[in-house]
Parts: sequence; structure tokens; C-alpha cells
Amino acid sequence: MNTLVKSGGAWLVSPSLAVVALRKMRVSGLATSSSSSSFPNWEGGVSMVQGASRGIGLEFVRQLLENNKKGYVVATCRNPKEATSLSDLKNRFSERLFIQKLDVTDETTIEESAESVRERYGSLNLLINAAGILSIPGVLQPETTLNKVEKSSLMLAYEVNAVGPILTMKHMWPLLKAGGGSGTDREVAVVANLSARVGSIGDNRLGGWHSYRASKTALNQLTKNVSVELGRRKDPVVCILLHPGTVDTDLSRPFQKNVPEGKLFTREYSVQKLLHIISNAKKQDNGKFFAWDGQEIPW
Amino acid sequence: MNTLVKSGGAWLVSPSLAVVALRKMRVSGLATSSSSSSFPNWEGGVSMVQGASRGIGLEFVRQLLENNKKGYVVATCRNPKEATSLSDLKNRFSERLFIQKLDVTDETTIEESAESVRERYGSLNLLINAAGILSIPGVLQPETTLNKVEKSSLMLAYEVNAVGPILTMKHMWPLLKAGGGSGTDREVAVVANLSARVGSIGDNRLGGWHSYRASKTALNQLTKNVSVELGRRKDPVVCILLHPGTVDTDLSRPFQKNVPEGKLFTREYSVQKLLHIISNAKKQDNGKFFAWDGQEIPW
Repeated sequence: MNTLVKSGGAWLVSPSLAVVALRKMRVSGLATSSSSSSFPNWEGGVSMVQGASRGIGLEFVRQLLENNKKGYVVATCRNPKEATSLSDLKNRFSERLFIQKLDVTDETTIEESAESVRERYGSLNLLINAAGILSIPGVLQPETTLNKVEKSSLMLAYEVNAVGPILTMKHMWPLLKAGGGSGTDREVAVVANLSARVGSIGDNRLGGWHSYRASKTALNQLTKNVSVELGRRKDPVVCILLHPGTVDTDLSRPFQKNVPEGKLFTREYSVQKLLHIISNAKKQDNGKFFAWDGQEIPW
Repeated sequence: MNTLVKSGGAWLVSPSLAVVALRKMRVSGLATSSSSSSFPNWEGGVSMVQGASRGIGLEFVRQLLENNKKGYVVATCRNPKEATSLSDLKNRFSERLFIQKLDVTDETTIEESAESVRERYGSLNLLINAAGILSIPGVLQPETTLNKVEKSSLMLAYEVNAVGPILTMKHMWPLLKAGGGSGTDREVAVVANLSARVGSIGDNRLGGWHSYRASKTALNQLTKNVSVELGRRKDPVVCILLHPGTVDTDLSRPFQKNVPEGKLFTREYSVQKLLHIISNAKKQDNGKFFAWDGQEIPW
């Protein structure tokens, strides 16, 4: 039955029509099998990039659309109307890009996003949690010493950097399980959470940045935790953590002056490296924490 | 000058009188040297146990008072009026026990506690952060699977188990720096944060308990982070993390049925082991994570 809803099929005008067809089949009992062979098979796969309006997230969207001539991308951000760079990509890639409002601090928008993907595609093959905060002038400033630690900063960084991704995983997991690796070159669906080397406890030699570090460390634990559960159930989903290096984005801009020459990556370079890791992810990578160059980072 | 303010001195009626004497000396310039020899020297030391109304915290207070015939203990809890076990200890140990209101979710009470200790003793030699939450019926339930993860639980566990201890460290650190190891058998003051083996990412083989695990993992990072800063400044303060084992307390009671025989410790046994680690803490232990038996736990 799956060939009927393949997005590469010439008879389909748009993915939403395919969903209508799939729904009709489900209602008629033709596509209700839950065996792995009944995964919706979107050629090229369906990827969600959460936090896609700028920086690394935006670059993931661009490369996913440019490198994979058939894949679909759901790009989420807090304010789609203000996401001009995503709008530009929408003009280029039309129906292969779907822009969806999602604010990780508002679980309702995560649920609505999941429902929207469910109706439109029925499955996901990749979830990249890219949204993250390090500093917001007047609100959140990376701490240089213990006496500058503020409760509001700790809580906000945790809410966005750790709680946001796990709530997104919670609501997208049934879609990822349904999708697995179908339509892609992988055997599995992938959840790739953007972490950071400063989230490593074992590698912490400098101190500081308490709120950001702790939030990323917690994200590492939460991701590992989910990977254990999904692995035990043999779900066709692999969860990994990625350190992108220090990348030239709005997030890193205030802190770039001490970056050694040659260590400040372009977004293009970093995302190219990270997509290489994602594309080659296998079951045995579940729960691991990789740097951009593929090296594992200690917890 | 320090002998004048030793608490063991027969001429002193209460510690608060000693503080008055110390303050007068400071005003007169007699005790203003910042060299290590001018540490307030409370024979037996001054220890704060944060989260002392029951469970492991209460047992720390009891053993500190019973084992050290001269030391002082500041026991903090949210509701001193309802802390009947602490009141019983107060009746036994009188002026060596000082009960102070402190709610880790209200930073004002942490600041007030620091001010109270500053006025009364001028220094601290030990801070044990023992308060922690795992489950609260109807509010916080340890998660068995990803789809039971709730934002409110993640945020609450983080606020109490991770943010609380670091805010307490923030406000008590000047007192610990002033105290160092003076009056004790140690060279250094100690911050001992009660963590848990389930906070280890590397050791996570079971999954579940997302909120609790992530909060303890974040506490591990925050403690390591502070240890790096204090170590670099050569402050006479060592920060360690402790796993008490599974101890028979209100916290563990709902989860004791799967504990192997002989692995459910009494509070007496666990705290005896943990105090052994604390008493022997040296500079090279700064930033480490120890189980009750002294073995290091991976991050």
C-alpha cells in the first residue's frame, strides 16, 4: 500500500493530498497494519528541525533541503511571521518545506506541532532539537563566578535547553517510531539534540557559565535516559547528542574573541559535519554524545 | 586573638556573646587581618545542614552533635515550628544546635540564614546540602516512561535539587572561605552536596525517573563547576558530591520493594559512612563524586 502514498509519485500534487489518501485507507482498513512494513514511506524522509529561524537550526534546514532533493522538512520556530530566512527558503523549496510555530516553553505548541505533522505526514524520520539559549541582554548573562549566579537564569536556561527538547521528544516520539528509517538510507529514525562540550562534567576545566552548562548537562542525561527506554523497547529510533563546535552564530557572537584561530566554524561547515554523523547513525550509537568530528565526548 | 572567641572557653555564655566580642575586636581593628591565622576558631567547627528536619539531614545533625562534643551545628528546614525531631535534639544539645528557617525555593531565606550565621559565628566549616525531592503525591511522581514526563515535575525537581544547593553555596561561600578547616581536623572547609547514583549519566542503564535524574546530574555539574572556581582561587573550601546508597527514609520508602537484601541502609549507617568521607576530605578530593563506600562514581 505504501507505494500509493510515496511523495515521489507523480500523481501526488502535495503531501497533504497523500495524507488524505492515507487517511481514507486507514478509515477503510487498508492501511491499519502496525508491522514495520506499513511505515509511511516518504521518499527522502521527513525531518523536523526545532529552532530553525536562525543559526545552526536554519542551516540544518537549508542543507537538508539542498542535499536531499526529495526529503521534506518541518522547520519550527517561535514566530514564523518574523522568520524571514525561513520564508526565503520557503520560496525556493515550496512544498518540501513546512514552517510550523513551536515555542519550547509552551507545551501546547509542541502538541499542536505533533498533531500538524501527524495530519500532514503521519511520521517523522529525523528530529533535530536546535533551539537553545546562552545569553539574553538584561535577562540571562553567562555567569563568570558563583556570586553572579541567579535563580531566574538557572531556571530559564533549564526550561529552554533541557525541558524543551525532552517535551519535544515526548510528543514527536510516536511519529518517529512510525517513521523509523523509512525513505532514508538509515535503518532508524534519529533524534539529534544539540548539546555542547561545556555540558560535559568530566571535561569541565574552566568553570563558569553555570546556567548554560547545567542545562546542557541535564539535556545529556535526559537524552541518555530516553535512549535507554527506546533501546529497551527496540523502537526504531536512535537518540544522539551533538556538540557543533564553536560556530559563528548569534549565540556565540558575544564570546568569540577568545576562540583560537581556525576554531570558529562557519555554520555551513559545522552542520555539514553534524549531518554526516546523523546520516550514518546506527543502533549502536544510541545514547552517545558526539563532537562535530565524530569523537565521543565524556559525560 | 582567636583564643578569646573560642567557644570552648569557660567565660563565654553563648556563641552570640562570642560574636559580640569578635565584632568589637573587628571594630577596634584587632581582628581584621585576612590571613588564614585570623579565621574564627570555633573549636569543633561550625557545620550547617541544609534540609535537616528529617531523613538523612536530620541524622547528619544528630551524629555531628553526638560524635563531636564541641562542634556547633546550624540545622535548617522550611518549617522550624513543625520540626519536632530537631526540637528534641535542641533539648539535648542546647546552645550547640541552632535551628534556622531556610527554604531552598526562596532565596531570601537563604540570604537571611547566611546573615544569621555571620552574626552568630562569623564562619562555617562545613555545609551539607541534604534537602531533596523525589516524589510528592499528586504533584511529582517519578516517571516510568517518556510519555509520563511533565514540565512541572522537571522544573520543580530542578528548583529544589539543583538550584537550591547552588544558591545555598552562593550565600554560604564567604562564610566557608572565612572558616576553612579551623577548629576541625581538616585543612579545608567542605561543601558536601547529596547527589545520587541515578544522577550519573555513564551509569544510567535503567532509564526512568527523568525529573529526579536530570536534577541530580545538573547538581553534579554545578558542584563540579563551583569546585573549579574555588580551586583556582585557592579558597580553603573543597566541594564534593555524595551518594548515600539507598537509605530507609521517607524519600525512598515508596521505592524500597525492589532493593536487594542488605542494600537498604539505615540512616545511621549511611551517614556514618558519609561523615567519614567528609572528615577525611582533602584538597585533591575537590569536585569529586563519592559513593557511601568511598568509591568514585562516573559522571
